[in-house]
Amino acid sequence: MWQPLSEPPLEPLERGEVPRPRPVNALADRWQMECNSRTRYQVLVSEGLLSPGSTVLAEAIAERRTLVVTTPTVARLYGDALQAQLRGKSHVSTLVLDVTEATKTMAGVEAVCQQAVAHGLTRRGLLVAVGGGVCSDVVTMAASLIRRGIGHLRVPTTLMGQIDAGIGLKGAINFSGKKSFLGCFHPPEQVLVDPAFLQSLPSRFLVSGMAESIKMAVARDAPLFALLERCAAELVASGFSQRRPEGRELLQRSIWGMLDELGQNPYEDQTFERLVDFGHTFSPAVEAALGFDIQHGEAVAVDIALSATLSRSLGLLDAPTHERILRLLRSAGLPLFAKPLSLELCRHALEEAARHRGGCANLVVPTGIGRTLFLKQPADVPDAALQHALQHLSRLSEESP
Amino acid sequence: MWQPLSEPPLEPLERGEVPRPRPVNALADRWQMECNSRTRYQVLVSEGLLSPGSTVLAEAIAERRTLVVTTPTVARLYGDALQAQLRGKSHVSTLVLDVTEATKTMAGVEAVCQQAVAHGLTRRGLLVAVGGGVCSDVVTMAASLIRRGIGHLRVPTTLMGQIDAGIGLKGAINFSGKKSFLGCFHPPEQVLVDPAFLQSLPSRFLVSGMAESIKMAVARDAPLFALLERCAAELVASGFSQRRPEGRELLQRSIWGMLDELGQNPYEDQTFERLVDFGHTFSPAVEAALGFDIQHGEAVAVDIALSATLSRSLGLLDAPTHERILRLLRSAGLPLFAKPLSLELCRHALEEAARHRGGCANLVVPTGIGRTLFLKQPADVPDAALQHALQHLSRLSEESP
Repeated sequence: MWQPLSEPPLEPLERGEVPRPRPVNALADRWQMECNSRTRYQVLVSEGLLSPGSTVLAEAIAERRTLVVTTPTVARLYGDALQAQLRGKSHVSTLVLDVTEATKTMAGVEAVCQQAVAHGLTRRGLLVAVGGGVCSDVVTMAASLIRRGIGHLRVPTTLMGQIDAGIGLKGAINFSGKKSFLGCFHPPEQVLVDPAFLQSLPSRFLVSGMAESIKMAVARDAPLFALLERCAAELVASGFSQRRPEGRELLQRSIWGMLDELGQNPYEDQTFERLVDFGHTFSPAVEAALGFDIQHGEAVAVDIALSATLSRSLGLLDAPTHERILRLLRSAGLPLFAKPLSLELCRHALEEAARHRGGCANLVVPTGIGRTLFLKQPADVPDAALQHALQHLSRLSEESP
Repeated sequence: MWQPLSEPPLEPLERGEVPRPRPVNALADRWQMECNSRTRYQVLVSEGLLSPGSTVLAEAIAERRTLVVTTPTVARLYGDALQAQLRGKSHVSTLVLDVTEATKTMAGVEAVCQQAVAHGLTRRGLLVAVGGGVCSDVVTMAASLIRRGIGHLRVPTTLMGQIDAGIGLKGAINFSGKKSFLGCFHPPEQVLVDPAFLQSLPSRFLVSGMAESIKMAVARDAPLFALLERCAAELVASGFSQRRPEGRELLQRSIWGMLDELGQNPYEDQTFERLVDFGHTFSPAVEAALGFDIQHGEAVAVDIALSATLSRSLGLLDAPTHERILRLLRSAGLPLFAKPLSLELCRHALEEAARHRGGCANLVVPTGIGRTLFLKQPADVPDAALQHALQHLSRLSEESP
């Protein structure tokens, strides 16, 4: 099923004494995340999770009273296969929850909690999220609140969920127009990643997920960048077909990079300089300005393009590397610019980032492939450079929209 | 101000290798709670917190952007004194929140969060709860959710808050008719206890708080029980006047007992056998059945009386000690019985407790003063004994209601 990698993603990096995610098996498709006594969970890449022979999900649930939360789309495409997995288990109930990024509010969380009451979930009860990043966020929040915290599993069905939103220990909802203003740290028990879900994922969602892989590649993984340059477009076109081992390597490297970064600072109480914030400084403002009528990954791509161009304007990134980054975003089908971007919006976004990052904007900009720098202060991002970068990207995107 | 105790509440108990709350100063009116890296906070008994000369509150807030949440009653009685403390601090804003146990829902939490957005609270921002247990619960929940967790201080103004609800690391709200169904573990930075607030507390609320002190006394502190026997009634009558040093000893012993119990198991992940659950098995059902039209402490007293009488019925508690417990509850002005109590309600409560305590009811019953036993299984609480206890208490309360 899973091809051993020619170049395993586990070459040691120098990062101090933090325990690193470690592969549990020889195929390196199962990682143990172990930061401290309260943060220990496995991410398991398991092909064919819903196929008749698989017992992975049933074993993870065991005899616990469980509420499975899924989305209308997943219910339509995989509802029968999912129910077949849960057949004969009266202690498992299912809720189909229709929540989008635009409606990811406390109401969605309360809907899950309501069903948890109705199903008699105990403190040893379990929630399972089978869906994309929004489903994962809402279920993580509900699990953190019910009886002051119960267990949850995640089965991410989108690329975004499989390499980013479903992998970490956070959940969040939007509140009062602010993205992720309310949230929690609540590690899952296990994350079950099945690449087969990607076969049915509409192209726009695949493309959106690619932005997070590109983020990880630019920020810290040059071999992943090279892989993406080689075949980002084909992977999107083929829906990560099993015939393309590069798709599996992309997942492995992206997931492992995410776990490795989170492991340094799982509760974000060590530092507010987080590499995974790359692409996530201007993007929340873009999403909010568009009323979330943009894919999260598209907004991240716009942010990556802007951060790279800024870096170029400031003389921190050479022209060929800057070109390579923009070219890769484009080849994956991602945008480089979005209409609401303006000097004012960017300054506002930097201020809001500082509110969330202990007083510093901590804008992550690339200085090479796999290398970054934090621009800590607003003064490190002069208006002129920002303006210049915005004009450059606006022009580029008009030339070939 | 504070009288050194003739008998300090810090005699070592044998309880394994858990760090215990330790006094920070010679007067033993400031304790350091230190369970592990993420649970470290101080409880400080500080008389005259809002008096003109005090700088305790201002120093705790420092320069942080802060939202103070208080109640209409506290605002009426202490609003001017509180505002005097905050004068000239434009980074501090105040919200008067009208929430009762009956309306302690997510709406109250969202009201605090809304104000936090409006006041531009950053990740280094602070919430301060100045009020009773309900205020503390709502603020703790909001603090745990805002930006995935910001700091909070508590200034409990009721006896219930000063020795119980405000001391621990939990917050909760009622949901779908279930008491505390949604909640969090989120330690405060500091708890500032000022006994002067008790002077203005209506008698019924003082009486309600006494139930938690009696709980602690019966469960683990015989000297506290003796103190309560000596002067519970007078303390209530005098509003914990400074002229009565027993009032200060009651606070010290109750707070320290609470911290010591919580320290063993702060996140309730070590065991579901919790001594502080004494009086808290039947009481949630009583409160819910009365639509929260009963003081929490009154329901706790009813539960203590029932648990003690059950213990007596089962031959686990001798008659004189049983009498002493009921007599103490009465002398403090607390009820021994509440109308909705029935065999059915009790069985339902035991089942619900089991849902919350890992499958076991874990009913705490006294076997002496300062000694208890856990009745783990429903079968340990036979219908006959329960029925007998209910009849006994119902009759008693009819004789002298």
